[in-house]
Amino acid sequence: MTKFSLTKEFLINIRKIAGLQISDNSAILFGHAKDESHHDLPPPDLVVFPKKTSQVVELVKLCAAHKVPLIPYGSGTSLEGGIGAPLGGVCIDLSQMNRVLRVNTSDMDVTVEPGVTRKTLNAYLRDTGLFFPVDPGADATLGGMASTRASGTNAVRYGTMKENVLNLTAVLADGSIVKSGNRARKSAAGYDLARLFIGAEGTLGIITELTLRLYGIPEAVSVAVVQFPSIKSAVETATSTVQSGISIARLELLDTAQMQACINYSALDYKPAPTLFLEFHGSPKMVREQAEMVQLLAKENDGECFQWADNPEERTKLWQARHEALYAALVSRPGSKAWSTDVCVPVSNLAQCIEETRKDIEKAKVPATIVGHVGDGNFHVIFLLDPDEPKEKLAAENVNTKMIARAIDLEGTCTGEHGIGIGKRDSLAVEMGSALEIMSRIKRALDPAGIMNPGKIL
Amino acid sequence: MTKFSLTKEFLINIRKIAGLQISDNSAILFGHAKDESHHDLPPPDLVVFPKKTSQVVELVKLCAAHKVPLIPYGSGTSLEGGIGAPLGGVCIDLSQMNRVLRVNTSDMDVTVEPGVTRKTLNAYLRDTGLFFPVDPGADATLGGMASTRASGTNAVRYGTMKENVLNLTAVLADGSIVKSGNRARKSAAGYDLARLFIGAEGTLGIITELTLRLYGIPEAVSVAVVQFPSIKSAVETATSTVQSGISIARLELLDTAQMQACINYSALDYKPAPTLFLEFHGSPKMVREQAEMVQLLAKENDGECFQWADNPEERTKLWQARHEALYAALVSRPGSKAWSTDVCVPVSNLAQCIEETRKDIEKAKVPATIVGHVGDGNFHVIFLLDPDEPKEKLAAENVNTKMIARAIDLEGTCTGEHGIGIGKRDSLAVEMGSALEIMSRIKRALDPAGIMNPGKIL
Repeated sequence: MTKFSLTKEFLINIRKIAGLQISDNSAILFGHAKDESHHDLPPPDLVVFPKKTSQVVELVKLCAAHKVPLIPYGSGTSLEGGIGAPLGGVCIDLSQMNRVLRVNTSDMDVTVEPGVTRKTLNAYLRDTGLFFPVDPGADATLGGMASTRASGTNAVRYGTMKENVLNLTAVLADGSIVKSGNRARKSAAGYDLARLFIGAEGTLGIITELTLRLYGIPEAVSVAVVQFPSIKSAVETATSTVQSGISIARLELLDTAQMQACINYSALDYKPAPTLFLEFHGSPKMVREQAEMVQLLAKENDGECFQWADNPEERTKLWQARHEALYAALVSRPGSKAWSTDVCVPVSNLAQCIEETRKDIEKAKVPATIVGHVGDGNFHVIFLLDPDEPKEKLAAENVNTKMIARAIDLEGTCTGEHGIGIGKRDSLAVEMGSALEIMSRIKRALDPAGIMNPGKIL
Repeated sequence: MTKFSLTKEFLINIRKIAGLQISDNSAILFGHAKDESHHDLPPPDLVVFPKKTSQVVELVKLCAAHKVPLIPYGSGTSLEGGIGAPLGGVCIDLSQMNRVLRVNTSDMDVTVEPGVTRKTLNAYLRDTGLFFPVDPGADATLGGMASTRASGTNAVRYGTMKENVLNLTAVLADGSIVKSGNRARKSAAGYDLARLFIGAEGTLGIITELTLRLYGIPEAVSVAVVQFPSIKSAVETATSTVQSGISIARLELLDTAQMQACINYSALDYKPAPTLFLEFHGSPKMVREQAEMVQLLAKENDGECFQWADNPEERTKLWQARHEALYAALVSRPGSKAWSTDVCVPVSNLAQCIEETRKDIEKAKVPATIVGHVGDGNFHVIFLLDPDEPKEKLAAENVNTKMIARAIDLEGTCTGEHGIGIGKRDSLAVEMGSALEIMSRIKRALDPAGIMNPGKIL
C-alpha cells in the first residue's frame, strides 16, 4: 500500500464544495488520528466537516476521481484504530451532521444524522418516555456505533446496533446514495443492506442517516450488586442467569483488580472482589420476581452482600463507576497507558476463557483488569502499560494473542464489540479463514478503487 | 435470459458424484416446480438429493463449469415462486440433509442441516426444555426459512430468522465453502456474512448448515381471544399493545371473512367478526399481569368476549385454526386457488393500510380474507380465485399492486416475510430504487456467472 499525496487540482476542487469546512491545521489533523486505542495512527492530510449529505456526495465524487482515501470520523472513541489514515487522505468528521431528524413516538423509532451521540439522543428523547438502549460506555456517535456494530452493557436485553438499526442511508465510493430500506419492523425484500454497512467500519460507504428502534423507558428499574469469592463463581452465576431465561437488562462482571480501581476512583463502598452489577427492567412486580430469582442463583454460587440500589442516585453512581472503569484503571497505575481488548465466547465457555486469561496475565506480570458484558459472553482485558517499558507492551501482546486464539478455539470471536480496525486484521484472518475472501469480494464490488477507509478490517 | 440445455458431458459427470441421488422423472420435476404460491413455475431439468455438503460442493463445481443454473429446494412452501427453474437447470432438494448435528443446551443453540424442518427440530428438542420460536405456519425447512428471512406469529417477541441465526455455512457459486462466524452471541468481526445469506433466497449460495438460537420453553403460556366491532378497533388495540411495551408473544388479526372460514373449518366457537388471537409467555405472574393490561386496552377499543384459553388443548386448537387459515379460506370457496400476498408497514400506519386494502377488495369483488402478524405491522391478503375466471386474477393483481404501492407510501415494504421470488421483483425495484443496483453488484461479486437461482429477487 503506497501513501497518496493530494494534488493541487484536488486541493483547488475540494475548496469549491459549497459551505464545506476544511482544515489542514496540524493539531486538527493529529487530533483526528487519536482514538481510545493503544495504536499509533497516522494523521490524515485534511479534515473536513460536512453539514449535509450533498456535501458528502460531492466530496466522495471528488475523492473517487482522484483516488483519495476517505476516513469517516465520529467522536474518536474507537478502540482498535478504526480511524487514522495509513494511506493518507481526507478524514470526514461527521460530528456536525448532528440533527435528530424525526421522532416517531407511536412507532418507537427515530431518524438521526450520524453525528448525533447516544447521550445527546437520549437527552433529546427524555420527554417522550422512550430511550435508545445501546450503550457502549463512551458517548460515541450513532454513525460510529453502527459502523463498529457497537453494543455494551444493555445488549443482553436490547441487542446490539445490528438489531436496533431499522434502516440507514449511505454514500458509496462512487458518490451514489443508497437507502437500505424503510421503517417497517421487518422485511423480506432482497438482500439486507443495512446489516452489511453495520460493522463495516466505513470500508463500504459513509453512513449519512440512520433510523433506530426505540424502547419505552421501563416502569421500574432496579440495580443489584453481588460479590463473589472467585471469578468462576461470579461467571457461573451470570451463565446460570442467562440459561434460566431471566430477562436481565444488564449483567456486568468486574474482577478484583477492576473493583479495587473503581472503589478508589468512584468511592464505592464495596470489597475488592469479583463482582456482578445487575440491572432489571420491567413492571415493579416483574423486576422484583426476576431479581429474587437471580439472588437465589447467586447464593448457590456463594455470592454474598447482595445489595440493592433502588434509588436513581445510587444507580447512577454504580453505572457511572462501571462506565468509568477504563479511567479508574488508568488512575490505578499513574502514568500508564491503557489498552483495552475484547473477545466473546459462548457463555458456557466464558468461565474457562476468563480464568485462563487471568492466569496468563499473572504470569506475564503486566497490570491488567478484566471487565465484561458477561451476559453475552463478552469480556475486556484492560492492560495498563508503562509507556517507557516496551517489554510490557510485548507481554500484553502475547497475552492478547493467546486470548484471541483461546476465544476462537472456544467457538468465539476475536472481538465482541470493539471491531477490527487496524488492530485485529490478523485475528480476523485466523477467525474467518476462507470467508475473508468473500468479504474482500464484497469490498471490491462496492469500492473497486479501495478509497473507503483503506487499511481497516481487510 | 435464455434457457439452458444440459449437455451429455454434464449428464455423464453428474452421475459420477458418489452417492448422489438424481431424478429426471417428470412427476418429480414438476413436483419441484410447485410451491404454495399462485405462480406457474417451470420445472427443472433434473432434481438431485444430496446427503452431505461434499456432494453439494461437487455438484456446484460441476454446474459452475457448465454454467448450469442451480435452484435450492427445501419443502416447497414458498409463496412468491422462490423455487422453479425459469432458465432450466438442476433443482437441489436439501430435504435429505436433515440431521440435527449438535444441541448446546447450556448456550441455548443448535446446529442443524438445512433440510431439518421447524417442527422436526422442536420435536427433537422436546426433552431439553428449549424450543426454536420462528414459526411461519408451514412446516418449512430451516434452510428455506433462513433463505427467505421467514418470521411468522412469534416474531413480535422472538424476532425473525435474521435475529435467530447465529452462524451459517454456505456453498458459493464457485464451490467454495464459507462459514459466516461462530457461536458467540455477538461479534464485531468484519462484515455480517450471515445476514447477507439470510433473505438471499439461494441467489448467493446454498446454505448447508445453520446454528440457531434457542429459547427456554416459557413457564407459563396463556392465550386469549378478543373480538371487535371493526378492523380498525382490532388493529388499534394491537398497535396500543405494541406501543405500551407489553412483551406479547403472539398478536394475530383475523378479519371477518377469515374468522368465518376458520369457524367453519376448525369448528371454533366464536362470532364472525374481526378478532385478535393473543399469546403471552413468561412466569405465571408476568403472564397474568401482561394479559390484564391488554384486556384493558381491548376494552378501550370496544373489544368484547375476551376469552381465555389456558389449557393446552384449547390453545393448540386455536393456533391450529390460525395456522390452517389458508386451507380454511380455500375451503370457504370450493374449487378456488389461493394467492397469499403480504406487506409490512410501521404499526402506526397499519390500520389505514388494512382498511384501504379491505375497501379495494370489496370494490374489486374478488373473495379474499385478511390475516396478519399485526404486532409487527405485517399482514396478508389471501385471494380466493376461480381458476376459470381470468378476470378475477386480474382484479386481484390490481388490488395487490395498489396495496404494495400503498405500503411503500406508508414507509413500509412490499413483503414482510414471503420474500421476492419471481412474484415481487418489480415491487422490489420500486421499493429499493438505486439500492437495487447495489444488490446486483453483490450478486455479481459472489455469483459472476449467475448460476445461483437465476430469475429470483433480481
